[in-house]
Amino acid sequence: MAAAEGQWVLMATGRTPTNIAVIKYWGKRDEALILPINDSISVTLDPDHLSATTTVAVSPSFPSDRMWLNGKEISLLGGRFQSCLREIRKRARDFEDKEKGVKIKKEDWDKLHVHIASYNNFPTAAGLASSAAGLACFVFTLGKLMNVKEDYGELSSIARQGSGSACRSIYGGFVKWCMGEKDDGSDSIAVQLADETHWNDLVIIIAVVSSKQKETSSTSGMRDSVETSPLLQYRAQTVVPGRVLKMEEAIKNRDFESFAKLTCADSNQFHAVCLDTSPPIFYMNDTSHRIISLVEKWNHSEGTPQVAYTFDAGPNAVLIAQNRKTAAHFLQKLLYYFPPQDNDLSSYLVGDKSILGDAGLHSMKDVEALPAPPDTKIPDQKFKGDVSYFICSRLGAGPKVVVDEGQALIDSVTGLPKGV
Amino acid sequence: MAAAEGQWVLMATGRTPTNIAVIKYWGKRDEALILPINDSISVTLDPDHLSATTTVAVSPSFPSDRMWLNGKEISLLGGRFQSCLREIRKRARDFEDKEKGVKIKKEDWDKLHVHIASYNNFPTAAGLASSAAGLACFVFTLGKLMNVKEDYGELSSIARQGSGSACRSIYGGFVKWCMGEKDDGSDSIAVQLADETHWNDLVIIIAVVSSKQKETSSTSGMRDSVETSPLLQYRAQTVVPGRVLKMEEAIKNRDFESFAKLTCADSNQFHAVCLDTSPPIFYMNDTSHRIISLVEKWNHSEGTPQVAYTFDAGPNAVLIAQNRKTAAHFLQKLLYYFPPQDNDLSSYLVGDKSILGDAGLHSMKDVEALPAPPDTKIPDQKFKGDVSYFICSRLGAGPKVVVDEGQALIDSVTGLPKGV
Repeated sequence: MAAAEGQWVLMATGRTPTNIAVIKYWGKRDEALILPINDSISVTLDPDHLSATTTVAVSPSFPSDRMWLNGKEISLLGGRFQSCLREIRKRARDFEDKEKGVKIKKEDWDKLHVHIASYNNFPTAAGLASSAAGLACFVFTLGKLMNVKEDYGELSSIARQGSGSACRSIYGGFVKWCMGEKDDGSDSIAVQLADETHWNDLVIIIAVVSSKQKETSSTSGMRDSVETSPLLQYRAQTVVPGRVLKMEEAIKNRDFESFAKLTCADSNQFHAVCLDTSPPIFYMNDTSHRIISLVEKWNHSEGTPQVAYTFDAGPNAVLIAQNRKTAAHFLQKLLYYFPPQDNDLSSYLVGDKSILGDAGLHSMKDVEALPAPPDTKIPDQKFKGDVSYFICSRLGAGPKVVVDEGQALIDSVTGLPKGV
Repeated sequence: MAAAEGQWVLMATGRTPTNIAVIKYWGKRDEALILPINDSISVTLDPDHLSATTTVAVSPSFPSDRMWLNGKEISLLGGRFQSCLREIRKRARDFEDKEKGVKIKKEDWDKLHVHIASYNNFPTAAGLASSAAGLACFVFTLGKLMNVKEDYGELSSIARQGSGSACRSIYGGFVKWCMGEKDDGSDSIAVQLADETHWNDLVIIIAVVSSKQKETSSTSGMRDSVETSPLLQYRAQTVVPGRVLKMEEAIKNRDFESFAKLTCADSNQFHAVCLDTSPPIFYMNDTSHRIISLVEKWNHSEGTPQVAYTFDAGPNAVLIAQNRKTAAHFLQKLLYYFPPQDNDLSSYLVGDKSILGDAGLHSMKDVEALPAPPDTKIPDQKFKGDVSYFICSRLGAGPKVVVDEGQALIDSVTGLPKGV
């Protein structure tokens, strides 16, 4: 290391999207390496709406590794962070910043401690795959800082060891996580099926559902399913392989009917396996069920799917509409049944708010004037307060380096999170 | 036929219990004959609490077949009643009542029309297998009237053609419905595994759960599952056969731990298959889930199952406690979380009300004074109004002839339902 020791802080900042699986990952064949029992396929969400931003800094002045999430210091001792840190450090390369007079040799990275600050632009606790975005961003940004040259496939394999589904956040658009066959997990990587421009009329609406129940973490939930569900292995070995092939076809051909049918069926089957677990796991609640009924009845009355739904390890609905017109129409139905608790429309739909205009919903008066949807045949009842808020989004791109140092989360002089 | 034609009404009255499956029947291999895709096992409930009473009458003066359910005339044209009527008439024998001067030859039964009046001593719409009790009672009583001598196995096969699970209501105690192999369904019959005295310390508490949702009928639900659930055939062919053997062992040995684990797992798997159906079927709601959590947490904290739960095609919980002490203890927990909406304890628990005394619950004051159960770790929240009422029952005997003519539902002179 050159430059006066302790005089410098070297940083990199990255932003990585979250993703939502349309063919679900549920069950590990190796707990330590996080190797799944089946392939999965996801869509990457627009990082403007749902992403993690992470700044990673190194300095000879740091006495230990430290991490802050959303401004609060958290432990880095967990095996998941340590795995990623170890794997990236292993691949670190010589680095030189002539301007700063910093030169770090490959073998020197091991002696430098890191400071990591990460921030999610969406609620961490809302069950929206925040750990996927966070771990992927951690790996991506650390790799940039340490001048790692490995391809994205290998980065995805490292991110996988942090949080399984994180490997799919290494790409934009449509992504497949291949389960792989090798014992060391080196072939359990993500590949991009198509980028975010391939099918860009899809609109994604997320209903963040209010929940009083404490949820089972996906880590312990999938462990319980592997140990106790008689249906899980049949799903993984017999049902999913066929669905993966069909889903790849549907994505390739932008065949919304197949895409929607497969997405809904696979979400339901994942939750079926949760129910088949002992003790049973319930991630969906009555509100989730009502949203599914709304979609199913509308799709049935139209004769062809307009909207697909998928639910992860929580009650929130991720709704994928065929196009903007369908999304606007569907939003009217959603807001008819689930009006905002506090009558404040502007904070009730976040993300791409322009969808409200498309739906003709400019104020609460417009929401109150919505007619009862004739085609959904739900008893004429409203469920105010059962949805906390909606996020309108779309498909998005993969991880990016944030070059503007003003957006870094760590102060380049103190090496500590800004504003802490 | 002897006696002046039209001058006589011949009647029989029977009472038949309802039953609840602990290994579930879900899916037919033959819709017309009602042949299932797997064996199932049930417990018969005490007819004092949950049964159908049916009076069947014939008279040369009846111009057509007619039926009344709970005092209201209903159509007998449905294939299910017609199948049972046809099969019993086929087996009718010579009959003579010397006192009344009535003599009916085997071949004459075909010319006589029937009047049938049936009554359930529990709410028909509550999803408590009222059709099972009703159809079994129809077949049993009609058989008595027409002097049918066939054994109970054959009667069960006829009841099966009325409503699948009705075949299990032909016996008391523990009953197995063998799916059979023959195309004509003649070996798809119920057999008794043990009578109601074999394991008589079991206590059954039914929570009738309030529901706003219209439910999918089990007939159309299981048809949809057969057509669309990828998991159903695997369950029927691979999972259930092993469970049936283990359940028979558990019943034989009065092994409550095995019995409870199998019962809960099979209920959950049946609902998992419903979720795996397209469109998905939700029979359980948030209240059902809360009751399951309560049981699971208590069983976990005790280290061994105290209570088993099972849910049919609706949100009601059927809870089977190991003995009266456990049932009383569990009732305290249930009433802590689900107190009566209108503060009226006496109408909130029906059936065997003496369990309230065992639980030390003599008035609403006692209910209000219940301490929060420490071992169940549900957030300290109550769900008043989410349970409509409880029924406390036990295992019961099979169908019986009601000899007291005062209890007949049809007037022996007019041939019409009493009080109509």
